[in-house]
Amino acid sequence: MKILVDAHGRAPNPRRVKIFLAEKGVDVDYEPVDLAEMEQKKESLTRLNPLQRVPVLILDDGTVICESVAICRYFEELHPEPALMGEGAQGKAMVEMWQRRMELNFLFHVAQTFRHSHPAMKEMEVPQVPDWAAANPPHVLRMISMLDGELAGREFIAGDRFTIADITALIATDFMKVARIDRPAGVPNFDRWYDAVSSRPSAGA
Amino acid sequence: MKILVDAHGRAPNPRRVKIFLAEKGVDVDYEPVDLAEMEQKKESLTRLNPLQRVPVLILDDGTVICESVAICRYFEELHPEPALMGEGAQGKAMVEMWQRRMELNFLFHVAQTFRHSHPAMKEMEVPQVPDWAAANPPHVLRMISMLDGELAGREFIAGDRFTIADITALIATDFMKVARIDRPAGVPNFDRWYDAVSSRPSAGA
Repeated sequence: MKILVDAHGRAPNPRRVKIFLAEKGVDVDYEPVDLAEMEQKKESLTRLNPLQRVPVLILDDGTVICESVAICRYFEELHPEPALMGEGAQGKAMVEMWQRRMELNFLFHVAQTFRHSHPAMKEMEVPQVPDWAAANPPHVLRMISMLDGELAGREFIAGDRFTIADITALIATDFMKVARIDRPAGVPNFDRWYDAVSSRPSAGA
Repeated sequence: MKILVDAHGRAPNPRRVKIFLAEKGVDVDYEPVDLAEMEQKKESLTRLNPLQRVPVLILDDGTVICESVAICRYFEELHPEPALMGEGAQGKAMVEMWQRRMELNFLFHVAQTFRHSHPAMKEMEVPQVPDWAAANPPHVLRMISMLDGELAGREFIAGDRFTIADITALIATDFMKVARIDRPAGVPNFDRWYDAVSSRPSAGA
């Protein structure tokens, strides 16, 4: 079994899987893929994932599982402890709610800013739309403000335990730097949360 | 228990939950909310969902669960049959992979086209970015072409059984009309799949 990841270690989605597995204490071999490299490499990746993205999990029988959260789901089912995707119907639904909010209303806007403004994405995101890049940071700041309010009442994003929603929010926050969005001031609860999750050993994965 | 949905029955995410529950054979009361209505209504919705979106599931004890897929997850856990989110670690991961692809690489692009071009969204999506609206339809057509290839070899999007991935792709396809994206010609496997899923009784939910 192995997981294809980006060679530079900067892409948020491979990092999400690495943090998830570090929290689980599960060891898997990572194989770096240089996405900026020659066409031939792209073709071998395309055979595994027609969307040409990493991470890609390849099981020993050759089964291919793409999409970071789907890979996390696979390991959550095989190694339920510690639960990172919730427990029980209500618990799983609450984690999924927050995970989706962090994905669609936070990470998404950071990623769109990056994809539509960064010179490195010029050939990957065609066409880059500068007006769209500029429209996204205000959504990011609104979400951080909302999280600051939520985190006044609890330790982690989906409740009193660390979950995949925290991982998604952590990679989104760190990716703001690459996307050139400044972290706002005046969000002490968000800052407290960020310091806590980014000082966990898994954050270095 | 009740689920808040849009009053006009056109929004894709409430429809996703309705189709999911119809496939499960689970009856829940739906309460229509007019999102275009007066500020006061918006405030009562904001208390339930700070992101001001439906669907919103309200349990009998007052617990609020937002986000369509999180609501689906809740009912999948309580009513596992028929499984719409996969079975076993590998099965659940494969459904999640296809569900995410349908969400992020299909529904997303249809929704962005709609949100950034339709006059009805002028006050909801600020600012509307016409260039971004125009950049999305090619991604939709690429995904349909990819699905046409995939569906040459199997009946449904995530395998031989109907799953939430089919529901997301169905609502995305139907929402193309609202977003004014024409369905392409020359995709017979996709057309066969669309005819099959849209003639299931649940599609009318």
